[in-house]
Formats: sequence, C-alpha cells, structure tokens
Amino acid sequence: MKAEIITIGDEILIGQIVDTNSQWIAHELNSIEIEIVKKTSISDNKVEIFKAIDLAKLNADLIVLTGGLGPTDDDYTKDALSEYFKSKLVINYDTLKQIERLISQRGGELNERNRNQALAPDNCKVIANNLGTAPGLWFEFEGKTLISMPGVPFEMKEMMVNYILPELKKNSTNVHIIHKLVLTQGISESKLAEKLEEWESKLPAELKLAYLPSPGIIKLRLTAKGTDKLMLDKAINDNINKLTKVIPDYICGFDAEALEEILAKALIEKSITISAAESCTGGNISHLITSIPGSSSYFKGSVIAYSNEIKEKILGVNNSILITYGAVSKQTVEAMAIGVRQIFNTDYAVATSGIAGPTGGTDEKPVGTIWIAVSNHNGVISKKFLFGDQRDRNIQRASLTALNMVLKQINNKEL
Amino acid sequence: MKAEIITIGDEILIGQIVDTNSQWIAHELNSIEIEIVKKTSISDNKVEIFKAIDLAKLNADLIVLTGGLGPTDDDYTKDALSEYFKSKLVINYDTLKQIERLISQRGGELNERNRNQALAPDNCKVIANNLGTAPGLWFEFEGKTLISMPGVPFEMKEMMVNYILPELKKNSTNVHIIHKLVLTQGISESKLAEKLEEWESKLPAELKLAYLPSPGIIKLRLTAKGTDKLMLDKAINDNINKLTKVIPDYICGFDAEALEEILAKALIEKSITISAAESCTGGNISHLITSIPGSSSYFKGSVIAYSNEIKEKILGVNNSILITYGAVSKQTVEAMAIGVRQIFNTDYAVATSGIAGPTGGTDEKPVGTIWIAVSNHNGVISKKFLFGDQRDRNIQRASLTALNMVLKQINNKEL
Repeated sequence: MKAEIITIGDEILIGQIVDTNSQWIAHELNSIEIEIVKKTSISDNKVEIFKAIDLAKLNADLIVLTGGLGPTDDDYTKDALSEYFKSKLVINYDTLKQIERLISQRGGELNERNRNQALAPDNCKVIANNLGTAPGLWFEFEGKTLISMPGVPFEMKEMMVNYILPELKKNSTNVHIIHKLVLTQGISESKLAEKLEEWESKLPAELKLAYLPSPGIIKLRLTAKGTDKLMLDKAINDNINKLTKVIPDYICGFDAEALEEILAKALIEKSITISAAESCTGGNISHLITSIPGSSSYFKGSVIAYSNEIKEKILGVNNSILITYGAVSKQTVEAMAIGVRQIFNTDYAVATSGIAGPTGGTDEKPVGTIWIAVSNHNGVISKKFLFGDQRDRNIQRASLTALNMVLKQINNKEL
Repeated sequence: MKAEIITIGDEILIGQIVDTNSQWIAHELNSIEIEIVKKTSISDNKVEIFKAIDLAKLNADLIVLTGGLGPTDDDYTKDALSEYFKSKLVINYDTLKQIERLISQRGGELNERNRNQALAPDNCKVIANNLGTAPGLWFEFEGKTLISMPGVPFEMKEMMVNYILPELKKNSTNVHIIHKLVLTQGISESKLAEKLEEWESKLPAELKLAYLPSPGIIKLRLTAKGTDKLMLDKAINDNINKLTKVIPDYICGFDAEALEEILAKALIEKSITISAAESCTGGNISHLITSIPGSSSYFKGSVIAYSNEIKEKILGVNNSILITYGAVSKQTVEAMAIGVRQIFNTDYAVATSGIAGPTGGTDEKPVGTIWIAVSNHNGVISKKFLFGDQRDRNIQRASLTALNMVLKQINNKEL
C-alpha cells in the first residue's frame, strides 16, 4: 500500500515550527508496511487542499492529512473536505458528547464554536478524538482512503495508535515487519558504529539496522521483514543476544520508550526510593523522573541548588569544600549526593554539578564539564564528563547519564 | 517571489529523521520576503525528482532542493538534474581543489568517488561548499531559479547564509511580509476565538490572523503582506494595540519564543530573585527557568517536595495543615510558597500542589486539580485550576501558568 502524507498549516510553510507529525506518521505507517511515496506541506487554504488531494490520489492509495481542524477561522480543512467530497455537514452526537465532557471538565461552557466542532461530513466515518474536540474524518473514495486528523500531536497520535493503525493493519498483507529497539547510553554514534561494524556485517539479509541518535541516548532499531514470523522473531532475538555481548556496558534497555521508564521499573521492582540534588541540570532529572505516572512511590523529591549558598545551607556541603574545590568538583557533587540522601531519607540519591553553558567556562573547567555522583548505603561514587557547548543538550545528556548511573548501580554493574 | 522547497531522501519518507532543513530554509527565505507556497519530500529517485520539479515550476519562481548530492550509490540528484536540464557533466576545478584540501586534512586519499563529487552540470552556476565535498548547483531556466544543495545541515546552512541568501536578496521584489507574535496564557483556544471575533472581523485585508496552540500557551500570529512597509508596520501595531485592550488579562508577551524568556527579562530588569517549591510539577518549573542561559543570576533553586514528609520537614508546612486540608489545598500550597521563599531567601517564590494524574483523583479533587501559589514580601496569593486528565499536559500547563502568575504579580496585574 502506498501513502502520501499532507500536513496543512502556514506555521510550517513560514518555518515557524518543525513538522514532527509527518515524521511520526511516516514511521508508524512504515511499521505496518505502508510505503510513504511523498510528503507535502501546504497552506491552510481550500484551493491548495483540493490541488494536493488531486495530486496525491494519482500515486497513493492512502492519503493522510493533519492540521486545519481547529475551532478557529483560520482552519479550513473540514470545510474543504466537505466541499471536495460533496458532503453535508451534520452534527455527530458522539463527538458532541465528548466536547461537552471536555469543556465541563475544564470548567467552561459550550459555545457555538465548540458545538461546530461536532459537525462532520455525512459521507465519512468519524474517528473519536479522546483527547480533544476535533474528530478525525475517514473517507473512502475512488478505491482510495483519505484520513484527516487534527494537527495537535498528542491528539493525532492517540487517534492513530488506538484506531487508525489497527484498522489499516486489518487490510494489510501477510508480510510481517518486526522492529526491536535497543537503547544505548554513554557512547557516541561514530564510536558505536565502529564497535558494531563486525556484528552488523554478519546480520542476515532479512534484518536491517538503523541508528536513531538523540542527546544522551542512541537507539538502535533492528527491523526484520518477511513472511515467516517465527523465523523473524528468532533472527532478531539471536542477533540481539550477540549484540549484548559486543557492547554490554552501553546497553541500558530494550523496547522501552525512555530511560526514565526503565529506571522506574527497576526502582519499583527492588523497592528502592530515590532523591536528587541538582545544580547544572536545574530540575530536569526530577522532571524526567516525575514524568512517569506513579513516580511518587519511589521518588521523594529533590533540591535544586542553583547557588552555592543553597548547596551549603540546605544540602550541607561544607563551605571549605566549595572554597577549596569549587562548585563543579568531585568533592562538591559527592557531598551533594550524600547530603540530599540523608535529608530526604532515601535509599539512593543522585547529584549533578557542572557548567551547562553557553558561558561560565574556564580553561580548567570548560563549558560542558559536568560532575555526577550517586550515593547509597555503601557510600558514594562520582564521575566527570565533558559534554559539548550547547546548554540544552548538556542538560539533557547530563540528566540521562545521571539516570543511567543510578540504573547501573542498582543492577550492580561497574560504573 | 514564490518558492517551493523539495527535500530528497528515503530517511525522511520512512520517518527515520525529522526534516529540520526545510523548516530552517523556510524561515530564512521568509525573512527575505520570499513566500513558501509548498514543501515536498520525495524519494531519492530520478523519476520522482523530475515529477517534483515539473509540478513545482507551475506555482513557484524559486525551487530549492536539498539532499541526494552525497558520494554514495543511493544519491541521484546531480544525475537527475543534469538529465533534466540536458547538461554535460564536467570537472569543476575549484570544487576539486576543495575536495583535495578536505580529504588531505582528514588524512585520507582521493579516490574515484571523491573525484566524481567535483563533476558539475555545464549549464549551471556552481556554489562552493566550504565545509564539505558536494557543491551546490544554481540553474536558471524558463524564467525560474532552481537551487540544489547538499542535505547535511551545516553544509547547507553555510551555503545559504554566505552565498544563496545574499544573491536572492539582490533579486527580491518589493513585497514585504511582516510577522508579529502575541503570546496568550490562561484561556482556551475556543474562548479566545470568541473574545476576538469582533476584533478579527475588523482586521484590514492585508492582515491575517493565525492561532498556534500548545499546552499552556496559545500564540497568535498576525501577518501583514504588501508593498508599503511603513503602512504594514502601522497596521500591525495599531491592531495589536487594539488587541491588548480586548484581552488585557491573557497576553503574556510579544514575539518572544517562550514564557520563561519573558519572565527572565522581567526578573533581570527588576533585579528580582526567585525560588520554587514544586509538588505536582515535579521539577518542570525549575527546568523551564534554568533552560535560559544566565538564569543563575535570578534563580536560587527549589525544593521538589514529592511527599508530605518533605513538605513538612524541609518546607516547614505545618503537619496539622496537611492533615486537615490535604496536600492539594490552598493552605498547603501557600505554606509551601511562604516556606521556600524564607529558606532560599528570595524576593519571590512559586509553589504547586495538585493531582497530575492519570490516577490519584477523588470526587472532590479530580485528576487535573492543581493549586498554585506565589509569595513575595507582601504575602501570598493562590489560585485553583482544573486542567485535564493527561499527566504530561497537566504538568506543562501548571508550570506555564505558575510562571505567568509570577510574571503578572511582578507587573502588578491582578491575578
């Protein structure tokens, strides 16, 4: 099956936002063997929408649209589709109920605009939007399928995952595509590629490897494609077993979406509580930990100590340590980890102190110098890292490295 | 001048990478008043390239291509262009010199593949690639311009900034496009649209309004297009003045990218220091504040109090308050804001306590119930919010609402 993705919105054309929706959609469709032949971004404008659909149907069996379904006057997609497919707009009562539910939950009152969100073309299937007010629309025409979704990423994703992908899958062929993710931490992409060269060269033809790098984490995706599902499963598992022997120190998880989820499972399994003392990471470690539902069962809290005064006063870092070694030092970060663990009375504690940048570096301690410490009842260990010169990347890399240091310590691996 | 951007590469179509090149190019072209009418991503394949150029030239005066110029076997763009424009490929000696220089710098030796990189169509202008081996190509045809650049972001950007943009600017017409952003906080998209209905209906024809929603912040973008720059500036400013009178309570900034940047400027300007006590936001407020370079000049730190024990022990919230009113209450959140301000010795403090979800709600305090307090030397104020049922959105909305409450307090607006 061939598909074209059309994203609608002036904010994409004027370069105000990066279009991440179409990447996500392409990736998901690909995983159920739908080939993307083209991606197009157009203005939120009836004529452009008509032209784009006319062009897309020449090459694609499936046309996926996002954007332009909002309640405001600059959103034209629904009207355009209704005109294109010669539909009548009628109230969809399931959608109206969902809108009423959402509005009342937010303590608001239903107005005309919200009510209009419940209007849908009478010749399409309406897809429930469980997280917002604009429903999805599914048209079948001339042997083709056109699906229109809101542009708000989390609404679109929920709709895709819970309804659209399973529906599309029903119609797909008997070719299986299996993806398996391996998360690595603490190694650069080029070094990783070097270490994996031999293993990769021996991969069987039905397996394909891809590198998915992001600050602090590089995911390896192994994709198997073929008709014999059992054989594909075996090929993937065998080769992942081999992989773990090649880079045992760098793998931090499998198939999970995020390191903080892997850590959450380990902490819950072993009934370990944790706290943090953050300087250069400025709250990001705590934010990552608490992004996981139920994190209050193992995370007691933390101190963001963005000044020496707080490191001393609240975390109990000795003034002489700060004066002698400075805030960005082994001595300070270890004292922070020990201090916060005592104050919060947790099994583990993690601490960071460094120079996130872009300024504040010296010859001895350049921007990107970051100390991380982990403490438990056995004592404290720490390690110095030299990341790059970009503030946001340094914060993210230091945070993920810190979480991985805790994870390794819990799993009794050497740091 | 109208332009289409075409990005070439399978890695975009299978969703392996997010296409950030086209966003950057769109933004830069827009800044020299070139309007992007379409963006297209296609496979690295001659037929697709031909079709894409044929379509683009119907609507655009300028066609910008990136990708497919690499030295490997899966790169077809140069051959495709040379066939499309009936060119002969000839050695470009400036390019060859640059390739030799780069290869020797990297300690390598010139091979056939590298040498072929120096081949260029004989009927185009060759654009030097100062950072890589694949040159850019500039064709003039049928009154149109087609520019092909490598897909490696830093090579492409260098070429654009140092050569292409200045050249295009020389030829640009006298049509001006001006964008102005207005940031709003604390109001839903549909309510905002309702409030703006009258104002919007009176906008002059040369102004266009767009809503850009995200969790916690809705940006309004006003775009003016025309030949008389002074008149456009005046029209935008006049209508933004009118807008501020329509929704004075909801505007939190202009043209800035993020609320934390606006707050940063206000704090620096008035020499105000700040700290935070976060429960349900779990460190995200601190993370947002410290994402801004130089935030250590006004942010001293915070306590993430994810358990009652910590609220009591570190923030000094009275045990009887926690027992009588619960952690999610006016009394607790105000005590947290007062406590952290005293401990951190800051001018302002902000505190949050709520139920981020997805579980933990009750009939009386459903998921999404969040209290926020701001304290300063005058005392403390607090407000209860009822957000939705999604954890990550609740955390983000509560964090931005908290920052905005501080900003309003600093600007002496009613909360």
